[in-house]
Amino acid sequence: MGNPGDRVSLGETWSREVHPDIDSERHSPSFSVERLTNILDGGIPNTELRRRVESLIQRDPVFNLKHLYFMTRDELYEDAVQKRFHLEKLAWSLGWSEDGPERIYADRVLAGYNNLNLHGIAMNAIRSLGSDEQIAKWGQLGKNFQIITTYAQTELGHGTYLQGLETEATYDATTQEFVIHSPTMTSIKWWPGDLGRTVTHAVVLAHLICLGARHGMHAFIVPIRSLEDHTPLPGITVGDIGPKMGFENIDNGFLRLNHVRVPRENMLSRFAEVLPDGTYQRLGTPQSNYLGMLVTRVQLLYKGFLPTLQKACTIAVRYAVIRHQSRLRPSDPEAKILEYQTQQQKLLPQLAVSYALHFMTTSLLQFFHSSYSDILKRDFSLLPELHALSTGMKAMSSDFCAQGTEICRRACGGHGYSKLSGLPTLVTQAIASCTYEGENTVLYLQVARFLMKSYLQAQVSPGSIPQKPLPQSVMYLATPRPARCPAQTAADFRCPEVYTTAWAYVSARLIRDATQHTQTLMRSGVDQYDAWNQTSVIHLQAAKAHCYFLTVRNFKEAVEKLDNEPEIQRVLQNLCDLYALNGILTNSGDFLHDGFLSGAQVDMARTAFLDLLPLIRKDAILLTDAFDFSDHCLNSALGCYDGHVYQRLFEWAQKSPANTQENPAYKKYIRPLMQSWKPKL
Amino acid sequence: MGNPGDRVSLGETWSREVHPDIDSERHSPSFSVERLTNILDGGIPNTELRRRVESLIQRDPVFNLKHLYFMTRDELYEDAVQKRFHLEKLAWSLGWSEDGPERIYADRVLAGYNNLNLHGIAMNAIRSLGSDEQIAKWGQLGKNFQIITTYAQTELGHGTYLQGLETEATYDATTQEFVIHSPTMTSIKWWPGDLGRTVTHAVVLAHLICLGARHGMHAFIVPIRSLEDHTPLPGITVGDIGPKMGFENIDNGFLRLNHVRVPRENMLSRFAEVLPDGTYQRLGTPQSNYLGMLVTRVQLLYKGFLPTLQKACTIAVRYAVIRHQSRLRPSDPEAKILEYQTQQQKLLPQLAVSYALHFMTTSLLQFFHSSYSDILKRDFSLLPELHALSTGMKAMSSDFCAQGTEICRRACGGHGYSKLSGLPTLVTQAIASCTYEGENTVLYLQVARFLMKSYLQAQVSPGSIPQKPLPQSVMYLATPRPARCPAQTAADFRCPEVYTTAWAYVSARLIRDATQHTQTLMRSGVDQYDAWNQTSVIHLQAAKAHCYFLTVRNFKEAVEKLDNEPEIQRVLQNLCDLYALNGILTNSGDFLHDGFLSGAQVDMARTAFLDLLPLIRKDAILLTDAFDFSDHCLNSALGCYDGHVYQRLFEWAQKSPANTQENPAYKKYIRPLMQSWKPKL
Repeated sequence: MGNPGDRVSLGETWSREVHPDIDSERHSPSFSVERLTNILDGGIPNTELRRRVESLIQRDPVFNLKHLYFMTRDELYEDAVQKRFHLEKLAWSLGWSEDGPERIYADRVLAGYNNLNLHGIAMNAIRSLGSDEQIAKWGQLGKNFQIITTYAQTELGHGTYLQGLETEATYDATTQEFVIHSPTMTSIKWWPGDLGRTVTHAVVLAHLICLGARHGMHAFIVPIRSLEDHTPLPGITVGDIGPKMGFENIDNGFLRLNHVRVPRENMLSRFAEVLPDGTYQRLGTPQSNYLGMLVTRVQLLYKGFLPTLQKACTIAVRYAVIRHQSRLRPSDPEAKILEYQTQQQKLLPQLAVSYALHFMTTSLLQFFHSSYSDILKRDFSLLPELHALSTGMKAMSSDFCAQGTEICRRACGGHGYSKLSGLPTLVTQAIASCTYEGENTVLYLQVARFLMKSYLQAQVSPGSIPQKPLPQSVMYLATPRPARCPAQTAADFRCPEVYTTAWAYVSARLIRDATQHTQTLMRSGVDQYDAWNQTSVIHLQAAKAHCYFLTVRNFKEAVEKLDNEPEIQRVLQNLCDLYALNGILTNSGDFLHDGFLSGAQVDMARTAFLDLLPLIRKDAILLTDAFDFSDHCLNSALGCYDGHVYQRLFEWAQKSPANTQENPAYKKYIRPLMQSWKPKL
Repeated sequence: MGNPGDRVSLGETWSREVHPDIDSERHSPSFSVERLTNILDGGIPNTELRRRVESLIQRDPVFNLKHLYFMTRDELYEDAVQKRFHLEKLAWSLGWSEDGPERIYADRVLAGYNNLNLHGIAMNAIRSLGSDEQIAKWGQLGKNFQIITTYAQTELGHGTYLQGLETEATYDATTQEFVIHSPTMTSIKWWPGDLGRTVTHAVVLAHLICLGARHGMHAFIVPIRSLEDHTPLPGITVGDIGPKMGFENIDNGFLRLNHVRVPRENMLSRFAEVLPDGTYQRLGTPQSNYLGMLVTRVQLLYKGFLPTLQKACTIAVRYAVIRHQSRLRPSDPEAKILEYQTQQQKLLPQLAVSYALHFMTTSLLQFFHSSYSDILKRDFSLLPELHALSTGMKAMSSDFCAQGTEICRRACGGHGYSKLSGLPTLVTQAIASCTYEGENTVLYLQVARFLMKSYLQAQVSPGSIPQKPLPQSVMYLATPRPARCPAQTAADFRCPEVYTTAWAYVSARLIRDATQHTQTLMRSGVDQYDAWNQTSVIHLQAAKAHCYFLTVRNFKEAVEKLDNEPEIQRVLQNLCDLYALNGILTNSGDFLHDGFLSGAQVDMARTAFLDLLPLIRKDAILLTDAFDFSDHCLNSALGCYDGHVYQRLFEWAQKSPANTQENPAYKKYIRPLMQSWKPKL
């Protein structure tokens, strides 16, 4: 299964002959690509299982992806439902468990091409917020697809700010039912995936009202469509919200509830319940209801965002060794565009980001697994930190993936604008992720509040261990460090200790600066809310620096652990250096501001950065090969393993319906236009 | 015609009642919006004419845009041809001249929605590169649409680097014909607009070969399709290149030429000609053949890029006063999102960029008109500067418009991802412009070469006027200025002289730094080509700073000229300040690097920037109203003049075919999926 032959497209005549321009990149590799793939997969058995699953999917014509580029929105929807239906049948027949690794690997191939994905998110919500009985009942129904669910939170007029939602669930003790209602136009649920045409049930977030008292947002399971004939149930107005920038295969929908009644048991009640008489009992913190979102965000990190950037890097780097343009010197033939420093500056940092986020996500998942079981047992001590970490990493990863996929797309010139490159699909998926599951600016500001609080806590006893220990991720705020960077040469900037310390210093300084700005305003008489708003731009910057620092430190530590893989350690060390230095140069003002770095030191960092580019360029194809995406999964005329870019673009373009159908516009408009001059003669 | 009532959508019931949240923004304006519109239009008569044209278009059902969001690619193509056909009929019937202001105003409304736009670009090429006889002949045929043309330059394997094109035109003296041929797969013409299904002729760029000698790229008029029945002519393989990220209405095409013969007269011969015996005569510089691209780039600045950003600003700013989210303080109702500093930081700089680029484009057009007539008369003295200016401004404007439209889109949250917002269309148009008509990095590096040359020229006699005078746009390189910024307070950073000088200083320093890096490498034995490549990232940064400086200085000067409009001058001064300061803060490292600014001064600049935000926020709606886009033209559920966002989103969504058709996927896949659990019981 490790044979690269399996990576390439089936049934294409040139697919076994690799283009010499990319073949030469794979000669005499400086490290084992297969070993790196195993490390990324978390072990050889995982790589093997993943490839078995991918191979199954790839050979099944229902999972063909290539014709998608020519489909209409309706066709894409139907195709996506078919793929999901087929995948479920396959999973049942092979005994794949609901959340088992096979499903994750299948999703890696089909992400963005199937639907009913909100079903999983709604099930997360039920498992996070439901009582044991509810989990047993609805979990089983959902697992069997006896019901198909979505998670209905955002409304036409309300998004990330949950307390602003308007949908109401009023308890009626006489019937022991909740009356779920959309009181206004702006309260119509808007955006939930699969809602428009598909689901039978929704987990609806609504304001609970009991005995006239309001108790904040709670989640309710609401039947939407008949299980008999799929028509909307009484009181339900449901439909599709119309075309979007991407995800055209998904029927994001709207839902207007007109006094819809559901039984008392349909309120998810792990952390709060309503007794038959309407008495409200809270069993968790007010934040408990956000737990479903927290789980979803963590899952999105590794399932959703990261693969888009890794795929975009694979496509753009492969194209950059096939595409030749211009001459480095007049006597030379045209050069591979990857030889140009400006092209390296675009693509190689994206490769570094891909690896940095991979290791960060792995660490975050470990922390999540160790802390989340406690939370479900109602021990909330680690929740603030888990929230801050998952929130910050959601924002930063989706930002970087959105930015990176677009850089990769643009680095492919005109062909990157063709859907056949695969890149427009990746870009429109990635940029959506900056908004869904929490708008990134709002999320960063939540991190910033956590940081301000942590900073003030660290100040209580500066330098020593504070009474209440700081969360692990912000302990560095209490660590004193020198006010000047000791680096004296460009080589010094390739020392992980140097750049990690630099990031810690700058992040801590920005957090201090932001906090002090807020406090100064308050001392001048501005109230705390205005003071926060008037300094939020500064806090935003601090939160971003903090997240960057965490990923640099984590990358450094992940590389250190690869002692027994010296070749791989060396190449990943280069990427880690590049990641840290790229961040320093992009934000050099923050490092120069108080003289932590001098101008001369920034120049050294730049020299170190520019010197790294040709080093990493040598390994660039291998580093993207290591992601081990099959041609099927990349679905890109530019990014195939064998490098036959132009033949594929030409062949794929022929399939455009425009090339096989008559042009009705000719007789209707073009010919009349060309003949219309005649009467004027 | 100046009545805002005319700005809003026709036939929508709520359209005469303006939403109070946006109405209040227009009460007691601090300046006359109408006057600012007149200034942007270049005078009251222009505003009046523009509105007459827009009104005509808006009332004509063929020019309806709203249903476009629900169309397939084929339908969009047919609709675009119909719109163009209809527009030509209208133009003829009203006697609009080919390049008259009416056409420009009509294009402002229909840009992105009609096609045959390459016809104009091909005609530009003919008028720039053709002899007087050729202009007379082909210009007339083109004007009457007796032929429909495209401009065929890029090839499957070749883009911005013209010398790399492979298409050949070999002169055959025996028949006095050129044999136009695509010798390889990579030489197939790829991307020309309207080529796939529409045009009859192409202006083909090809290597001229006469008597065995190669003479570089020249342009040839090549018939593609029969004027009788529109079928491809012998030797021609032509078709559509397939789906793209945007511009789905355009049939970008491919063209393979198999020894296609055209008469000698079909080579455009203003600057070079081939005599009957095959003798080659050059009449211009080798750069002459780029003139067509130069004209096109200048036109794109005001017709293409800028309106996308202005429209995106209008939509996002209007939405930001209707959308309420979260509370500034717990006791308040939810605030307009434009009250948040982070939202102001996103949107208001885009508004400032819109105005900065408007004034820059106006100046560039003036310079173009004064210099281009000389060039056509073969006086090339101003060509290098015109080339550098148009190239740099093409790159910077398209970069800023791409970045800005996406910032505006994302600032609208989830709804910005809906096509009904109008923003996805604007974003996909804007990001394409970073690649077409010259990839931006390549263009910036052309500017950088001009800057290095200019810097070295200025060094010949530093401080004094060099023997050969420097081009006007780079004269500042020879001006000595202090090494420290004199600003002592935040208020000082609102002084145009202070920030313009700061930009001049930093731009000049970066150009010097880049040049010295290249020279140092060369002195160390690296050859000039490697030295250039190894410092190109540094040169890129310098070129960007230079372009930014030019726009700051130009904006400053444009505002100074508005002496007789003190209210408008005041508000545009704020925008100019914001534009300059935003650039300083985003690139603060460049200003801190050698101590030109201190950290304390950067903090002052930040204070000045943050203080400007609420000032400009007060005028934000008025500043977007002044662009005077009609609702028809914005085609956005979020951006209408009256602010009725949610009703429109809801109504428009209902029109989605998904809401009016049966769902075939239900019986085929959804029901079987839901029933498949049964056998397992």
